Amino acid sequence: MPEIDIHICEVGPRDGLQNTKTFMPTEAKKAWISALAASGLPEIEACSFVNPKLIAQFTDAAEVAAHALTLPGVEVSALVPNLKGAERAAAAGIRRIILPISASEAHSHSNVRKSVDEQVAELERIVALRDGQAGAGRLRVVAGISTAFGCTLQGAVPEADVIRLCARTAATGVNGVSIADTVGYANPVQVRRLISAVRAEIGLKLATAHFHNTRGLGLANCLAAIEAGVMSLDSSMAGLGGCPYAPGASGNVITEDLVFMLEAMGLRTGVNIGRLLEARAILEAALPGAEFYGHLSKAGLPKGFRPAEAA
Amino acid sequence: MPEIDIHICEVGPRDGLQNTKTFMPTEAKKAWISALAASGLPEIEACSFVNPKLIAQFTDAAEVAAHALTLPGVEVSALVPNLKGAERAAAAGIRRIILPISASEAHSHSNVRKSVDEQVAELERIVALRDGQAGAGRLRVVAGISTAFGCTLQGAVPEADVIRLCARTAATGVNGVSIADTVGYANPVQVRRLISAVRAEIGLKLATAHFHNTRGLGLANCLAAIEAGVMSLDSSMAGLGGCPYAPGASGNVITEDLVFMLEAMGLRTGVNIGRLLEARAILEAALPGAEFYGHLSKAGLPKGFRPAEAA
Repeated sequence: MPEIDIHICEVGPRDGLQNTKTFMPTEAKKAWISALAASGLPEIEACSFVNPKLIAQFTDAAEVAAHALTLPGVEVSALVPNLKGAERAAAAGIRRIILPISASEAHSHSNVRKSVDEQVAELERIVALRDGQAGAGRLRVVAGISTAFGCTLQGAVPEADVIRLCARTAATGVNGVSIADTVGYANPVQVRRLISAVRAEIGLKLATAHFHNTRGLGLANCLAAIEAGVMSLDSSMAGLGGCPYAPGASGNVITEDLVFMLEAMGLRTGVNIGRLLEARAILEAALPGAEFYGHLSKAGLPKGFRPAEAA
Repeated sequence: MPEIDIHICEVGPRDGLQNTKTFMPTEAKKAWISALAASGLPEIEACSFVNPKLIAQFTDAAEVAAHALTLPGVEVSALVPNLKGAERAAAAGIRRIILPISASEAHSHSNVRKSVDEQVAELERIVALRDGQAGAGRLRVVAGISTAFGCTLQGAVPEADVIRLCARTAATGVNGVSIADTVGYANPVQVRRLISAVRAEIGLKLATAHFHNTRGLGLANCLAAIEAGVMSLDSSMAGLGGCPYAPGASGNVITEDLVFMLEAMGLRTGVNIGRLLEARAILEAALPGAEFYGHLSKAGLPKGFRPAEAA
C-alpha cells in the first residue's frame, strides 16, 4: 500500500446518494463501492443509518455496509444522526461513525430536529456507547460540525460559536472533529482563519474538512485547508450531492478533480486516477438522469502527467 | 471609482468568442461589452486583431473596439498576433495590446505559425512601433507567455524555458508580461513556484496571470497566483472559451465565481456582482446553444453576503 500525504474520504455513497432522487439499486451500490475501493481510496463513507422513513435511499444501509466491510484496504465509515443510528451502525460492523452537529441552531432543527444542545447530549450518549465496548473493535466517533462556514437559514455563523462547539464536542472524548461547509459559503481566507483558530483550540482533534462546491470554490477551499494543516478531506465522486437545505446547491467537491489537484501538487493520495474514472463510469451507468460534475473526466490528464507516487 | 485590490481583465469578448462556433452579432457584442463595463470591471479585452480569414468572429474588431472605447471608466485591450494586428489595433484607437508568445515551440507553430524566436522578433517590431508613437497616446505592449505551465502538443514545458522567455521579452522593453496556462495544466504548487521564479527574474514586469479551468483548478490557481504576489488576473464570463488546441477544454476561469471568491476574501475588485450577472444574461441570450459555466449564477450569493467594499 502506498504512503499517503492527504487522506481522502469518498462520501458519494452517503452525501451524494442522500441528495439523489432516484434509488440506486443495492447491487449497483455494491459494485460502485467495490470500484471506489479498488481505486485505492483509503476511506469510504458507505451509507447513513438514518431512519429509512426519512431517506429511502438508505433502506439497505446494513447490506451495503456489510459488503463494503469485505473489501480489503479501505476504511468504511457511516453517518449516524443519533444514538439509535450509532447502535445500528455498530451492529452492522461499522467501526467509524460521524454524527452531524450544526453550528447553526436553525440548521440543527431542520437537519436533525434537535437543538444544538440536544445533539451534543446525543454525542455524549454515543461516546458512552463506545466506552462500553470491548477494546479492539470499538467504535471511533467523529463529530461533524455542520454549517461551520455559514448557513442558508441563519446566514453568517459567528466563528466564536464554531470554535466553542468544536471545543465542547472535543471535550466529550470523541476520536475526531470534522468541520463542514454544508452549504458552500466558505472562502479560502475564512477557511484558513477558522481552521487555524479551531486548531489552536482543539489541536489535532480537528481531523477532517468537508467542503461543498456550491459556489465553485471547493478546490480553492481544499487548498486553503491543506495550507492550514488539515491532512484529511471529504469529497464526492462526480460532485454528487449537495444539501437539501442549500438552494441551487451544485454538488460536493469532486473527488476526481481533487485527486488530480493533489497528485499534480506532489501530494500522494494513494488513488489510481484511471481506476477512479472507471468507478465513475459505473456510477453514471447506475444513475441515469442524475447531475454529474467534474472537469478531469472530460479533459483527461495532461500529456506526460506523472502522479505524486512516481515523483 | 472604488479602490481595487485585485484587477480583473474580462477576456470573454476575445478569448471566449475566439472559441465559440457561432458568430455573435456585432450589436450583441456591443451590448454585452457595455454591460460588462457597467458592472465595474476595470479592463475588457474586447477583441482580437487577427486575420478575419482565420477567425471570422473578429471581422468586426474595429467596430467593437470603437464602441468599447466610448465606455467610461474601463480600459480596453486587444489581442494581436503580429505587427500588422498591432497596427490595426492602434488605428482603431486601442492603447493596450497583448501579443501571445508560446513557451512551447510546437504550440507557437500551431498558434501563430512562427517559431518562438520569430515571435520574439515580432514583439521587438511592435515595441519599436510603440516607441515611434507620440507620448500621451502611446501603445502599451504586453507579452502574453502562452503554454507557460505545459502544452498539449509538447507535454511538460521546462520552467527554465519559461523563465528565459519572460526575461527575453521583458528585455525588449514591453510594458508588462502576462503568464498563461493556455491548456489548463497548471496546479497551485507549480503556479506559486513558477510565478515566484519569474518575479525573481523580471520583478513587477510580470503583471498578470491567465488561467483556464480545463481541469477544474482555475480558482485554486488564481488563489495561488495572488499568494505569489500577482495582482491582476484574466477571466471570462460564464467561463466562455478554452483553447482550440486543448482537447476537452472546458473553459476559462469564470469571472462571476472569481469575483465572488475575491470579494468574499475581502479583496476589492470594483465589480458589482448583481450587474455582472445582468451582463451574463445578455451573453446567454445572444449565444443560444453555447456552453456556459459557473456556480454563482446558479446558487446565488450567500445569505447576508457583504462584498469587500462594504467591509
